[in-house]
Amino acid sequence: MSKGKNIAEFDLINDYFRGMTQQRRDVLLGIGDDAALIRVPKGMDLALSVDTLVAGVHFFPEIPPADLGYKVLAVNLSDLAAMGAEPAWVTLALTIPQIDDLWIAGFCSGFTELATRFDLQLVGGDTTAGPLSITVQVQGLIPAGEGLRRSGAGAGDDIYVTGSLGDAALALRCKQRGADDREDMEQLRMRLDRPVPRVEAGIALRGVASSAIDISDGLVADLGHILRSSGVGARVTLDSLPISPAVAAMLEESGDWSMVVAGGDDYELCFTIPPDRKDQLAAIAKQTGVTLTRIGVVEEGVGLRCLRGDGSIWQPEHGGFEHFSNGSGQY
Amino acid sequence: MSKGKNIAEFDLINDYFRGMTQQRRDVLLGIGDDAALIRVPKGMDLALSVDTLVAGVHFFPEIPPADLGYKVLAVNLSDLAAMGAEPAWVTLALTIPQIDDLWIAGFCSGFTELATRFDLQLVGGDTTAGPLSITVQVQGLIPAGEGLRRSGAGAGDDIYVTGSLGDAALALRCKQRGADDREDMEQLRMRLDRPVPRVEAGIALRGVASSAIDISDGLVADLGHILRSSGVGARVTLDSLPISPAVAAMLEESGDWSMVVAGGDDYELCFTIPPDRKDQLAAIAKQTGVTLTRIGVVEEGVGLRCLRGDGSIWQPEHGGFEHFSNGSGQY
Repeated sequence: MSKGKNIAEFDLINDYFRGMTQQRRDVLLGIGDDAALIRVPKGMDLALSVDTLVAGVHFFPEIPPADLGYKVLAVNLSDLAAMGAEPAWVTLALTIPQIDDLWIAGFCSGFTELATRFDLQLVGGDTTAGPLSITVQVQGLIPAGEGLRRSGAGAGDDIYVTGSLGDAALALRCKQRGADDREDMEQLRMRLDRPVPRVEAGIALRGVASSAIDISDGLVADLGHILRSSGVGARVTLDSLPISPAVAAMLEESGDWSMVVAGGDDYELCFTIPPDRKDQLAAIAKQTGVTLTRIGVVEEGVGLRCLRGDGSIWQPEHGGFEHFSNGSGQY
Repeated sequence: MSKGKNIAEFDLINDYFRGMTQQRRDVLLGIGDDAALIRVPKGMDLALSVDTLVAGVHFFPEIPPADLGYKVLAVNLSDLAAMGAEPAWVTLALTIPQIDDLWIAGFCSGFTELATRFDLQLVGGDTTAGPLSITVQVQGLIPAGEGLRRSGAGAGDDIYVTGSLGDAALALRCKQRGADDREDMEQLRMRLDRPVPRVEAGIALRGVASSAIDISDGLVADLGHILRSSGVGARVTLDSLPISPAVAAMLEESGDWSMVVAGGDDYELCFTIPPDRKDQLAAIAKQTGVTLTRIGVVEEGVGLRCLRGDGSIWQPEHGGFEHFSNGSGQY
């Protein structure tokens, strides 16, 4: 039962993370001591976010390991994006039932792929034996005082989202219902398993957005966090929500908006912006290559109203909250 | 399968961590946003260390939850201590099979007790449903450039350890063999379940020790890390190792040194110090209330020799390394 820090026959770093060659100048001491040593650059604040993904709860155990390695990092980077932080250092706590070379190599390749893209250096971690679960903590940098918070939305601000909503939830439903032989399945699956964290958009929104959050539990739930933190309400127009042709076709068929507004796993950003800064958005969209869509407006008061095209109020069946038996509580 | 960040019926922070009231001035934004925001004080380096403890691997599932909450943090603080870092912020990723109020309250009380003692602020985390395991990441502060590394030992340096060795391993053996009705069992159990991280000693050793590590896998294994990182060898005298009366009695009976030098879970510090700085140690021992014992000397060459009282070489049966099936690989 003692805590062995070394596994004689297993060297995760040298055997599997050779592809990860980032050597950031702000890392004084990386892997291989009791702790990593980092010198945070002058004038920068530090952002920290941690997420755990558990097999059978947050992902199908049979997910390709490269997708899992990618996603566990993407989910965390999405949190940094929502703060306007630039990713910098990451730690990986990997709990695996046994040493399966192919699986681990796949996992590390997906993780490395995304880390390399954002110049993220792996500075520490712990590999343990046990039921499959992964905890990743990302550290990012923000110019002092410029972190985007949930609490800055004001009445009259416009509400925007990046990208499009509902694809990941649709992919999940297709998988769960065995309806995954459709032509666009691979495209949908990428949205579920390989979400692109909106890091560049978050950075570009520093000093522009009045509040921001990443949409991991669905728009209603996550915009709800902004509204509660800011002490305001909001009105959102369903018809204005950005959706893909696949989601549009599903809506056409079922009329079920819940997948779009409460589906989860979108990893888009939702942000608010004072009207007098709106003219900066076109340049941000162009620079980052990310679509920015106005979906509603912040109002005085409490609560979120979702309006149909005819002006009637649409009521979500559930708000995107997950019961404990199937979810997480990140804080 | 979507990742719900909110658990409607469960509020770990407000319901269980109310006792944790630290509000550090360097925390700009604590729990409740996508990430915590921290302003690292000027002139300080940041130390990061992460550890995972898995039920049935690193602890008995029936461990009192308060002891577990304490220990998972102590294990991490011990890593910071080995760097000479002052604990500052912590994140907690808790994976639990179900919501058991009493258990969680106990866990949080043990965690809070130790966090409060070291003015550590909980700034983030994630609570997920799944097989019991806990990942903690601690962040600490060190005056720029003063971090204690494993790599600084030089031939001629003396080798010291804090406290005493082998009590935790003895406690574990007594438990495993059902021999836990002895009079001093509670005292031994505290050494296993409630180790005191040598934070003050680590801080006091900044600029004094030439290298340091915490002893989590046993003296032979951990001193071995210092030797390999520093490119030196060493000689240790078994008779000089600091041991408690309980361990002395066990040794008297069995003559088995492995529990003392390869037992694991000691969470003492092992450090090296150039001879010309040795006169500073008395003041450090007095100031921190921790015994510092000279156990050997660093030599040119490679490898560690453990000498018996008669000068013969003692060979460990195993070096304190854990096989993967029962251990971790922290990096």
